[in-house]
Amino acid sequence: MDIQRFKKQIQFIVEIDRVKHILRQTRLFDSSRHENDAEHAWHLGLMAMVLAEYSSAPVDLCRVIRMVLIHDIVEIDAGDTFLYSEDRESASEREEKAAQRIFGLLPPDQADEFYQLWREFEERQTADAKFAGALDRLEPVMQNYHNQGYAWNRHKVKSSQVIAKNGYIREGSEDLWDYAYRLIRECVEKGWIDRYE
Amino acid sequence: MDIQRFKKQIQFIVEIDRVKHILRQTRLFDSSRHENDAEHAWHLGLMAMVLAEYSSAPVDLCRVIRMVLIHDIVEIDAGDTFLYSEDRESASEREEKAAQRIFGLLPPDQADEFYQLWREFEERQTADAKFAGALDRLEPVMQNYHNQGYAWNRHKVKSSQVIAKNGYIREGSEDLWDYAYRLIRECVEKGWIDRYE
Repeated sequence: MDIQRFKKQIQFIVEIDRVKHILRQTRLFDSSRHENDAEHAWHLGLMAMVLAEYSSAPVDLCRVIRMVLIHDIVEIDAGDTFLYSEDRESASEREEKAAQRIFGLLPPDQADEFYQLWREFEERQTADAKFAGALDRLEPVMQNYHNQGYAWNRHKVKSSQVIAKNGYIREGSEDLWDYAYRLIRECVEKGWIDRYE
Repeated sequence: MDIQRFKKQIQFIVEIDRVKHILRQTRLFDSSRHENDAEHAWHLGLMAMVLAEYSSAPVDLCRVIRMVLIHDIVEIDAGDTFLYSEDRESASEREEKAAQRIFGLLPPDQADEFYQLWREFEERQTADAKFAGALDRLEPVMQNYHNQGYAWNRHKVKSSQVIAKNGYIREGSEDLWDYAYRLIRECVEKGWIDRYE
């Protein structure tokens, strides 16, 4: 065993404990409290296992799962940026730096592997990244539906914005977008969104 | 799209939100609060990605990750059973019933796939299950080390019990057991365990 290598791996494993403290804007499905990034990533992993058949293009399930498990680790340094925030550009810079630092704790071969997987997720060009990204958007839509539009109302987000921002789900899965769109429409019909128009 | 199939899948995805409310005996690495099962499963997924090279036998990383992501879902019904509890036998019965109900929410093919994967983890006979099980034991040893033996002291667990219960890590990985054993010994030397002998 290469002790220096092992030490780096353990240091990374301890560091990522901090992901459990990063709170998202959305609440759990039961509305009891905000969700943290570790819980969110775990849920996306399960959603990938259950919903992979709905991807528009064939995906490598293992890569999709690994992508969703690591995709928010950068938020340890960069913080959570709400999907509807105008701060997305500066967030990208912060996240790039964070990726270099945090994945850089690993031995070089793994640092590179994790960094490339994270970049692939961010760039949304491959089938795996498109499907992983679709799940990342779908979960909060489902949660907001279960929370009667909690995070959307709190930030005065309109249904037109929700549709515009989440239409990207379609690039990963037509079926999951049809479902998400139905949920958003139902929120409108029930008066759970667009209260501030 | 088969709507009945999709509805079952969504029902399962919503149901497992409850995993986020199941608190474990161990605290996070930073000792701030107890860890929940979703955070624990996420952390094991990452540990599998980082530490797979230390498995004593070759493993299918994707299967190991899927196993650790689902392994505690049964605790929605069965609750968390502390490793050192004498209630392990009745816990097995409760967990079996829970697996039938919760995985049974999925369409039959997926219900069977998830149930088999969970049983494989529980039976610890394959290389994948042995390595997944080793990670499941290693994380709380690391956390207890970082927490100055918090969960062990709270339940008056002795180092001999910790060594006996966690020696199973060796079946999955000699290297990870050597590391875990070193941590346990250091806890003894620092007076963080065996305070009640």
